[in-house]
Amino acid sequence: MNTIDFDRYDRVRAIRWQGDHLELLDQRLLPGRVEWMNCGTAADVAQAITDLVVRGAPAIGVAAAYGVVLAARAHGGAPTRTSLATELAGLRASRPTAVNLFWALDRMGARLDAGADLEALDREARAIEAEDLAANRHMGALGAALLSPDSGVLTHCNTGSLATAGFGTALGVIRAGVAAGRIVRVFNTETRPWLQGARLTSWELLRDGIDAKLISDGAGAHLFSTGQVQWLVVGADRICANGDSANKIGTCQLAIAARHYGVKVMVVAPSSTVDMATAKGADIQIEMRNCDELLGYAGTRTTAAGVRAWNPVFDVTPAALIDAIVTERGVIERPDAARMAAVFSASEN
Amino acid sequence: MNTIDFDRYDRVRAIRWQGDHLELLDQRLLPGRVEWMNCGTAADVAQAITDLVVRGAPAIGVAAAYGVVLAARAHGGAPTRTSLATELAGLRASRPTAVNLFWALDRMGARLDAGADLEALDREARAIEAEDLAANRHMGALGAALLSPDSGVLTHCNTGSLATAGFGTALGVIRAGVAAGRIVRVFNTETRPWLQGARLTSWELLRDGIDAKLISDGAGAHLFSTGQVQWLVVGADRICANGDSANKIGTCQLAIAARHYGVKVMVVAPSSTVDMATAKGADIQIEMRNCDELLGYAGTRTTAAGVRAWNPVFDVTPAALIDAIVTERGVIERPDAARMAAVFSASEN
Repeated sequence: MNTIDFDRYDRVRAIRWQGDHLELLDQRLLPGRVEWMNCGTAADVAQAITDLVVRGAPAIGVAAAYGVVLAARAHGGAPTRTSLATELAGLRASRPTAVNLFWALDRMGARLDAGADLEALDREARAIEAEDLAANRHMGALGAALLSPDSGVLTHCNTGSLATAGFGTALGVIRAGVAAGRIVRVFNTETRPWLQGARLTSWELLRDGIDAKLISDGAGAHLFSTGQVQWLVVGADRICANGDSANKIGTCQLAIAARHYGVKVMVVAPSSTVDMATAKGADIQIEMRNCDELLGYAGTRTTAAGVRAWNPVFDVTPAALIDAIVTERGVIERPDAARMAAVFSASEN
Repeated sequence: MNTIDFDRYDRVRAIRWQGDHLELLDQRLLPGRVEWMNCGTAADVAQAITDLVVRGAPAIGVAAAYGVVLAARAHGGAPTRTSLATELAGLRASRPTAVNLFWALDRMGARLDAGADLEALDREARAIEAEDLAANRHMGALGAALLSPDSGVLTHCNTGSLATAGFGTALGVIRAGVAAGRIVRVFNTETRPWLQGARLTSWELLRDGIDAKLISDGAGAHLFSTGQVQWLVVGADRICANGDSANKIGTCQLAIAARHYGVKVMVVAPSSTVDMATAKGADIQIEMRNCDELLGYAGTRTTAAGVRAWNPVFDVTPAALIDAIVTERGVIERPDAARMAAVFSASEN
């Protein structure tokens, strides 16, 4: 696996830091329009996270880190946690589920506590971004090594360059697996309600020249039954101390179907997604979003006036259904609390 | 269960036979517009079936039966299978999966063989329609009797009055269960790619005043994990001799998730859906439809130009995952080949 050409399938970037402002590729408009949003303040960044201009747990963390730099710039003088309290609280409240957000804010907060000046904060945010890209490429190689030759994979939602600093987590494994010649069939789901798969993953794969086929969210079990897929490869928004993994709604259902048909399940996420303070999936607060997201499709109202909906946007895949968790620290096969603790001690997290 | 008021929740009809033409509620336009399409010939009916103006296996059968009457009217004289061969072939080729279509055409064909005149054919088609409505109400009572008080249910696709002569199959059980006071929570999926759930089932339930919540196709497992649902209630497009049941794509995935969480699975369909000549699900030809259905919706393109898709529109739920098959002939619990044969002998079918 030493021959992976990481640059071959890595043409997309969604976050551009310009020193005095942050440029975010507006993911709400893809694939129809490629437009960048300028964020000049921490409040701009928080709003962009809330509004899904930027989404994907690692990308949210990177964006929030730059948001702290923007807060420090606006404040002037020596920034502290206290002087930036309003901005930090706004960034922290921008999304409830992605632990990377809190992790990035805590890391920037620790630098503030250590007396970091604006330049040091800028370096720290850039380091968070660079480390995420490096981690993704490393995870890509680790995950690809788990695949047999001529494998088919299914992925859900978007976990690619758009969702991270670059390359992607689950989609990074797929990029690396294609580059290594181990993956010969790629399928991705639409991912309702926000269609991250249809709009974003299909777009990324097309830009990178990776042949893939889109399926409806309900078609996973039938696809598995045909034998075309050997691995379900997904990301995570939060991984608990016992290996239970929160990810986009639909992931758990696909994982259950995968197990039923003997398809393996790989969860790929940076260690910043691991939350050893949360013992198990049942302890995770599942974000409920506006039901309007389900009442229409791509701006077209599809339901009659008066129709109600139930719109959880994450679910929890029990560790027992996961064959491997891949982080930049290594691969945890058949994850459970003991195997997780062997890699991630509670104290350091 | 003798107190079910069947009329209370049964306001919707989608097929109106006018003696010299067939009126079909154009289901492609719902819920935005309520428009009827006039079919004056068998070819019109066949095209309407192909184009999904009318859909749902039992409704397709009813429409096709009236199509034969229209063919006989156009032919004049004494109609025979031979003289109507072109029209019969056109109707038979209009959709590949729904066995009710072939069943209805065979039944009309048998009348032709018996020398039926136009009036007799008209009576036969009306009988097919009336029997379907009566069967649905009977199945509704049978299925509702399986439910515990205060049950929650999830259904998939549309199996209601729009998909049948009236009342519905799976949705008929839900109507009857609500009328009987046994169902207190109703959820229904969107059902991509054609959104039969979001567009049609939500509309039907709203018209009947049944409180329901729409969920994304991927949210079933998470819903089951919350304990709000005790039964997954679905229809079928074909039921094999061993109980394997073909239904809208996504059904199998929901059934696997249901079993995982201890939610029971009920398949509701008239006996005309049972195909004892097909031994098992693997023998069913799964209809593949145009990939454009997945690449956008309602004229809005959601994917980049060049994106490819894989669009099977049915899947097969293995009998082992089904707790009860409900037909108008009775309830088959834990269906298998022996229990199916006890109710449906191969010879009669």
